[in-house]
Amino acid sequence: MQLDTYITLAHGNGGRFMRELIQTIFARHLDNPALDVHADAVCLPWHQSEIVITTDGFTVKPLEFPGGDIGSLAIHGTINDLAVVGAIPRYLTLNTFIEEGLEIVQLDRLIANLATAAKAENVAVVAGDTKVVQRGEGGGLYLATTGIGFRDPTVRLGMEYIQPQDVILVSGAIGEHGTAVMLARQQFGLHGDLHSDAASVLPLTQALLSLSGLRFMRDPTRGGLATVAHEISQVTGYTLKLYQAAIPIQDPVQSVCDILGYDPLYLACEGRVVAVTAPQQADEALARWRDLPQGQSAAIIGHVQVGPARVILQTQLGGERLLEELEDDPLPRIC
Amino acid sequence: MQLDTYITLAHGNGGRFMRELIQTIFARHLDNPALDVHADAVCLPWHQSEIVITTDGFTVKPLEFPGGDIGSLAIHGTINDLAVVGAIPRYLTLNTFIEEGLEIVQLDRLIANLATAAKAENVAVVAGDTKVVQRGEGGGLYLATTGIGFRDPTVRLGMEYIQPQDVILVSGAIGEHGTAVMLARQQFGLHGDLHSDAASVLPLTQALLSLSGLRFMRDPTRGGLATVAHEISQVTGYTLKLYQAAIPIQDPVQSVCDILGYDPLYLACEGRVVAVTAPQQADEALARWRDLPQGQSAAIIGHVQVGPARVILQTQLGGERLLEELEDDPLPRIC
Repeated sequence: MQLDTYITLAHGNGGRFMRELIQTIFARHLDNPALDVHADAVCLPWHQSEIVITTDGFTVKPLEFPGGDIGSLAIHGTINDLAVVGAIPRYLTLNTFIEEGLEIVQLDRLIANLATAAKAENVAVVAGDTKVVQRGEGGGLYLATTGIGFRDPTVRLGMEYIQPQDVILVSGAIGEHGTAVMLARQQFGLHGDLHSDAASVLPLTQALLSLSGLRFMRDPTRGGLATVAHEISQVTGYTLKLYQAAIPIQDPVQSVCDILGYDPLYLACEGRVVAVTAPQQADEALARWRDLPQGQSAAIIGHVQVGPARVILQTQLGGERLLEELEDDPLPRIC
Repeated sequence: MQLDTYITLAHGNGGRFMRELIQTIFARHLDNPALDVHADAVCLPWHQSEIVITTDGFTVKPLEFPGGDIGSLAIHGTINDLAVVGAIPRYLTLNTFIEEGLEIVQLDRLIANLATAAKAENVAVVAGDTKVVQRGEGGGLYLATTGIGFRDPTVRLGMEYIQPQDVILVSGAIGEHGTAVMLARQQFGLHGDLHSDAASVLPLTQALLSLSGLRFMRDPTRGGLATVAHEISQVTGYTLKLYQAAIPIQDPVQSVCDILGYDPLYLACEGRVVAVTAPQQADEALARWRDLPQGQSAAIIGHVQVGPARVILQTQLGGERLLEELEDDPLPRIC
């Protein structure tokens, strides 16, 4: 694969350029082909039980936005990567990169919110490191977290279990995090009462774990629902068909996207889950989600069919179009 | 404690301002008074054995310097925090914050060196995340790593085991990392053949673990030897006396410090260990270190005595002076 010469923002957007960068530099050197590309969290063999580990960086701009901030987002983002592989989060480490000149009262507020979110999820922050970088060499505050959780060793989840006719569900409306952060930047002159969906998805993932037909779960963050669908199709070699009319999208999100030319399918969520189940258990999965406060808008949004590897959107008018893999970065620093 | 209004570089230098920042914001909110201040790595209770975890951020500037680069430094720095608590490093997670515009060939080289260093230490990088930040909002590349290791549960190390009359040793000459990075910045117009001491200290720490009189080990990174001595005196309440004539310092390091007005006692090492042992085992510890290639210059450099909590330097002329806790930042972004 031919690499570019310089890093661009597209190398961080969760789409094709980022995947190629990770494959050709990180996974190649580190002898770990699955690194970050297909795995939310990795299982460490340890005696008879399973320890699951994940790591995440956070660079969201602005640092505070309606519905969250970089502190609570770091907790929810890390917890969610453990939750979607069926683990219960337990420990977290925290790295902070602080830019010289950050207001200390803001740092205090952000770390307080991080701590509150961690406590609410029964996660202990057990180690930390702090670096300060010169003014102009940071974005105010970057965070890096590593989360450790425990998992029942009988849990079997992964894209490799996905089969044709399997059903795709989403736990709630998409694109709210991306839209709320975008509006918080105020660069568009748009204002609304949109809030980020950032939250722990642990109740949603735990609700489905006892379903024998549960194949795979993923939280659609950077790159959104379309990017999760692309990852599944690339790994499995199957075609994913999504039903546009069934995908829950709040009106304000759709309006903002219409005005600015964004496609909500590519916008980040930080509190939603995409699940793939056997067809005969999809209704039960949907019912379990809808029983939860955070799953009221859950929906069946597509299915898997025999290949080739591609993602097809069945439009509201009944037509079909190919969903491209993300290339241009609609929203850098969304998480 | 009264906090300042804005973050300054001194909040990241390992000295007093950083300690106060961590105590008043991070440790307070996160309900973990030991967070980063006194612990290199934290033990996670898990069945009958001990898992040890640590986390580190790396912002060194320039990204490459004689004797190392940010990639190998991230491995060695993380491994060393596990090694000094008596653990054997095993797994690592890697977060990268890449600035738009970084040359991809340089990123490739840095990650390759990181991978080489990890393989040499039998450490597997098991999870990663990549963020790209806009041009001007990063320092080229920042790394954040979390290391996980295993420890024999019979190991008992910690500042709480230190007693009066205990002996302080260092495994080699100090200040080489700080001096090498400083010269690599070329802002002083000085050039030399100084190399960073950055390396794994695992052979040094493992060599002492069977000594029943081993109390405590620490790698003197940010803030250097003087900062480790201050941390010990603050936690134990004892006086630490260091013998200036016994502290190994290479001539080129001393010369550069004399020219620029730095005190090598405050400069970072990235491949040295400070150990505290019972007096009757100090000679044995010294002999074990000197048997190793990386311990040839090891020396007994001080002892612990009944308080008050302070650090005294016995000068080469026989006088004594108080070593202050680090306040001004001699070298930001040294690690």
